[in-house]
Amino acid sequence: MTGSYFKKKVEAIDVREKSVSKLLAEMGRTAYQGRKLGEAVDVWEAMLKEKELTIIMGFAGSMSTAGQWKMVNWLIKNRYIDVLVSTGANISEDIVDAMGLGYWQGSHQVDDQQLLKDDVNRYYDVYGKETDYREMELLLTDFLMTVKKDYPYTSAELLYLLGNYLNKKGVKSIVAAAAAKKVPVFCPAIADSAYGETFLMAKNQGHPIVLDSVKEFDQFVSIGEKTKEVGVVYIGGGVPKDFTQLLAISVSPKTMDEGVPGRKGHLRKGIKEYYYPHRYAIQITTDSPQWGGLSGCTLEEAISWGKIDIEGKRAVCYCDATIALPLITHALNERVKFKRKAPDLSWLFKSVS
Amino acid sequence: MTGSYFKKKVEAIDVREKSVSKLLAEMGRTAYQGRKLGEAVDVWEAMLKEKELTIIMGFAGSMSTAGQWKMVNWLIKNRYIDVLVSTGANISEDIVDAMGLGYWQGSHQVDDQQLLKDDVNRYYDVYGKETDYREMELLLTDFLMTVKKDYPYTSAELLYLLGNYLNKKGVKSIVAAAAAKKVPVFCPAIADSAYGETFLMAKNQGHPIVLDSVKEFDQFVSIGEKTKEVGVVYIGGGVPKDFTQLLAISVSPKTMDEGVPGRKGHLRKGIKEYYYPHRYAIQITTDSPQWGGLSGCTLEEAISWGKIDIEGKRAVCYCDATIALPLITHALNERVKFKRKAPDLSWLFKSVS
Amino acid sequence: MTGSYFKKKVEAIDVREKSVSKLLAEMGRTAYQGRKLGEAVDVWEAMLKEKELTIIMGFAGSMSTAGQWKMVNWLIKNRYIDVLVSTGANISEDIVDAMGLGYWQGSHQVDDQQLLKDDVNRYYDVYGKETDYREMELLLTDFLMTVKKDYPYTSAELLYLLGNYLNKKGVKSIVAAAAAKKVPVFCPAIADSAYGETFLMAKNQGHPIVLDSVKEFDQFVSIGEKTKEVGVVYIGGGVPKDFTQLLAISVSPKTMDEGVPGRKGHLRKGIKEYYYPHRYAIQITTDSPQWGGLSGCTLEEAISWGKIDIEGKRAVCYCDATIALPLITHALNERVKFKRKAPDLSWLFKSVS
Amino acid sequence: MTGSYFKKKVEAIDVREKSVSKLLAEMGRTAYQGRKLGEAVDVWEAMLKEKELTIIMGFAGSMSTAGQWKMVNWLIKNRYIDVLVSTGANISEDIVDAMGLGYWQGSHQVDDQQLLKDDVNRYYDVYGKETDYREMELLLTDFLMTVKKDYPYTSAELLYLLGNYLNKKGVKSIVAAAAAKKVPVFCPAIADSAYGETFLMAKNQGHPIVLDSVKEFDQFVSIGEKTKEVGVVYIGGGVPKDFTQLLAISVSPKTMDEGVPGRKGHLRKGIKEYYYPHRYAIQITTDSPQWGGLSGCTLEEAISWGKIDIEGKRAVCYCDATIALPLITHALNERVKFKRKAPDLSWLFKSVS
Repeated sequence: MTGSYFKKKVEAIDVREKSVSKLLAEMGRTAYQGRKLGEAVDVWEAMLKEKELTIIMGFAGSMSTAGQWKMVNWLIKNRYIDVLVSTGANISEDIVDAMGLGYWQGSHQVDDQQLLKDDVNRYYDVYGKETDYREMELLLTDFLMTVKKDYPYTSAELLYLLGNYLNKKGVKSIVAAAAAKKVPVFCPAIADSAYGETFLMAKNQGHPIVLDSVKEFDQFVSIGEKTKEVGVVYIGGGVPKDFTQLLAISVSPKTMDEGVPGRKGHLRKGIKEYYYPHRYAIQITTDSPQWGGLSGCTLEEAISWGKIDIEGKRAVCYCDATIALPLITHALNERVKFKRKAPDLSWLFKSVS
Repeated sequence: MTGSYFKKKVEAIDVREKSVSKLLAEMGRTAYQGRKLGEAVDVWEAMLKEKELTIIMGFAGSMSTAGQWKMVNWLIKNRYIDVLVSTGANISEDIVDAMGLGYWQGSHQVDDQQLLKDDVNRYYDVYGKETDYREMELLLTDFLMTVKKDYPYTSAELLYLLGNYLNKKGVKSIVAAAAAKKVPVFCPAIADSAYGETFLMAKNQGHPIVLDSVKEFDQFVSIGEKTKEVGVVYIGGGVPKDFTQLLAISVSPKTMDEGVPGRKGHLRKGIKEYYYPHRYAIQITTDSPQWGGLSGCTLEEAISWGKIDIEGKRAVCYCDATIALPLITHALNERVKFKRKAPDLSWLFKSVS
Repeated sequence: MTGSYFKKKVEAIDVREKSVSKLLAEMGRTAYQGRKLGEAVDVWEAMLKEKELTIIMGFAGSMSTAGQWKMVNWLIKNRYIDVLVSTGANISEDIVDAMGLGYWQGSHQVDDQQLLKDDVNRYYDVYGKETDYREMELLLTDFLMTVKKDYPYTSAELLYLLGNYLNKKGVKSIVAAAAAKKVPVFCPAIADSAYGETFLMAKNQGHPIVLDSVKEFDQFVSIGEKTKEVGVVYIGGGVPKDFTQLLAISVSPKTMDEGVPGRKGHLRKGIKEYYYPHRYAIQITTDSPQWGGLSGCTLEEAISWGKIDIEGKRAVCYCDATIALPLITHALNERVKFKRKAPDLSWLFKSVS
Repeated sequence: MTGSYFKKKVEAIDVREKSVSKLLAEMGRTAYQGRKLGEAVDVWEAMLKEKELTIIMGFAGSMSTAGQWKMVNWLIKNRYIDVLVSTGANISEDIVDAMGLGYWQGSHQVDDQQLLKDDVNRYYDVYGKETDYREMELLLTDFLMTVKKDYPYTSAELLYLLGNYLNKKGVKSIVAAAAAKKVPVFCPAIADSAYGETFLMAKNQGHPIVLDSVKEFDQFVSIGEKTKEVGVVYIGGGVPKDFTQLLAISVSPKTMDEGVPGRKGHLRKGIKEYYYPHRYAIQITTDSPQWGGLSGCTLEEAISWGKIDIEGKRAVCYCDATIALPLITHALNERVKFKRKAPDLSWLFKSVS
């Protein structure tokens, strides 16, 4: 038994000129979260080599104000992700920047009452102008006036239409990049963001929108019926992570009872239901397991639920995404030289195309 | 200037027999998070003394599996809160316990693959039976079969009906307690929970439900038009906190332009819009500010947005809610001897009553 | 196998008037860190019932400025601890308060440059006067002038003499309470605190002190030769925790080779050496395991080192000590009605008495 | 006033092939901890350009087992640091690796009781053999037998002798690299590590060592009398950080009263004492400010104490050092093309040379 502990040595890093991906590979042979960051690149690379895998990224927090959104566009353009599940913040605040307005490097130690008087919103150490935010809301409202009244949209449908609208305006935001590549963007709590106010503004102009979260969930889980395997990347936790995990166990009531044709499911004894654990998983989080919440919990906890496959590859790195995401994307860019075979999910947009 | 630093001494605690509220009061004269916990009780007590205040509680995470849900019922029954904004987990997993099934004290260091085989779901150090979870889902589905097909519900409406349904069955869960007291419960990402699957199960039985998140947001912000002031209590962050904060700045497009009649709003210069900062705020969180996210950010950051009133009372305590919530509620129970004048929000349920 | 998961139910807490210890007992039947806090009281109570157990408390951070030091005095007076291992801060800054000078409730959001100009030192949200700090340093220097020059003291010896000195002055600090009860106080990095400067001040007045850290370590590990079993309580991590853990594996070279007579040791195969894992362990910490450090690591990690006994009782609670320590001490005060049989460690002071 | 918020834009990162230092520079124009990591490189680079600056690095935790020690050697060889203040762990566990024995990549989810049986010590996700640890202890003991009995060493003196000893043996550990470059290594709590046991082993062989922590502190603060300005780099907190900070306010009692000749000190009004705030400061930590401890506190808190200069450059990055240290060192390696003028501190070793 003893011998099995000693397979791979910790290798102390020598400082020399090397590429980002080489450095991450070396960090992958150290320990603690440095090793995990290196492993996260390995897991993502392994996902890209799979033939029949749908990669879903959960994207929480307020990352677009923090200069992270163009990396998501890059992931979409290269089809290193196939579905995005996002907070409303991440796919509205990026539009401010894509419109050429932007955000400023500020300080988290500042007089917030003075900021308020000066119409400046603070995101930790980032400043944004309220007037710029409003410009973005007006653009969104203009868009909403162009869509069908009283039609029960899902967020994925509405954001696809928005992406096309923004592409025409030359506003190259995340949903615009996604629409161009027909990558669905789900935003399960979309009203909880700038979108919420724009819905009210459209309604106030006599143009009420309906967003049906039941239809949306149905649409999301139907992805599970048309893919062989699923890999997930969680940048932060929250609703995007939780929602994405439900795919593993809620493919649809019918398929849960009978199993998805052509897909290897597991039968849960006690309730006679199929589940389809996600085979690959990467999680970047700043939360911790001991608080009992979903955002910080281990991927092992998800195994008990049938949400993650114990046989699959997985890596959790506890690190601010503003550090981890740039490193991982740049390492992927250096390392992945082949073109990935990405699944076609354009059927999701049929009813609104 | 120097003198002003030295108003209140830190008082070292002497160990003697004393009540919970007395101990918390003493902790309120120490430092770090002990002091903050003591201050949180003071802020809540001050809220209860206000004449025209609506108290909204954001309730995130998976707290019901952790034995915290009956304290929420107690807060509702005493009308120490007027509106609840919750994750789906907190208002579905409590039902399992209220049905008499329950959860078990487990370990976070366990073989999760074995748990899966044994149909046990793990919530950090809590075990739940998958079959019990399914019982709860079947009960929810039975309920869904009783509501109107294709009617655009809001979560508050649907959960009010559910509360009435459960009360009739003797299942004394959070939404049941809330319905009895006509306390609205909003759940902005409700499909992201057991509810999601039950919607699919109802649909599969030919009974599709519509949940309109636009109507829901409209309904939520309309609370702001009918209250003089707002106090907030955030147990955790996430969507419940963010959604609740939007009330301060999105009372409705019309009232934003003209101001809510009878309510003191502030006019944001740059965009000519009224906002109504929340006057009281308590936040219990295990997140930290430096990650830039909403769940850990300071209430001062919210001041820059006009979401919190700099003149109001506020306290942030960084502590696991399973420690903070029992202490705060028991201290309130000992200390508050008057009956609070709670606002009537039953108009929210008119269309479904 | 399945049945074994379901032994103890999670019991949701009902809000009613109850004592602190009753509330903690109820928290011990919930989950996450609330349960752990309840378990910490149980473990400590079990320690107090043992017949031949030496209880060592590691006390890190700057807890005395935060109003926590009188609870340590109470633990000493009741002999709920037998040895204290502390940072220098905790056993010097308490003296300021014991002298009647004290600390003030401040804010962590303040102009620190202005504080500097006003001679105010900040400890997160506590203010202390530099002039008061200096008063304490002068008192310590006066004491140092009374001890032997060039004698190789250990911190335990020097702090015992200081305790006696302070008791005569009526300054009832931690080391004073400890000296009165002949409870040894070790401070392995004592120069790293106000003590450091007072050593220089004494030397400047022609009175150089010698503090021999080798003799000190020898003295500390000799405790292990004269006790049957050890229980540990860690308030924070750092040097106090690490130093205390070494007792388990470094009882002394001789006893490691031959085993301590009358004590049940375990023989480490590979290196033919006895070790004596600590049987009880409580840890209150705000650090997290994933950073790989000692302050946040699990007690299980310590099992691999032979520092903690897998058969013993242990509890780790992730919580600010300004919350946990008052609760635990008050619960102990209510619950423990017997007088504990405490070991006599006065032999440690023989050479300086 | 408004204009001043908007000086530097947040620049969203585009994924393209680029060097490590270029990527960090781009992260320095984003937000949250990614920006801070970029700023840390800038601050260090600025330190290296100073003409009369002594750079002290505090190095806490157990970083050598995690593959980080060779980067410290590189910092020493290039004289990017002039003094090292370390835990005992970091400068003993590296020796195991430098001896060619090493550590292994393990898992933090493992049966620790089995590890104990197999003589394997766990450091989070790193495994080390107890027999290898013992080899290192025997080497240290052999060394101790070569130094003077009963001479009051400081850790810096003893570790300098050890470095020379190891260099002769070809064991290229941190203290060996430091001795070769005459960089002093202080270890204020040295007995709290493998060194502690080796002191006992030497004593058991009739060779008692004396380590005088008063003389050591005196020696450390005397550095402050011979430098114009000080810059600090804290990898972790703990004793190494606290001890290093004392240099700013305890240069020596005499110089505090009169001021260090040729150095610009500030006079603290209330106590008529000079202090010399550190001009540059970098802190990498995984602790958080809200717990009130030194390891997580802001550098602004240190300003109130006169330990950090408000006019100087400083950066705090909340990140695991196993991620931050490789990135910072590799960026420095790419960016710094000049040879730094490092101060000569060899006078510290005069009495033992």
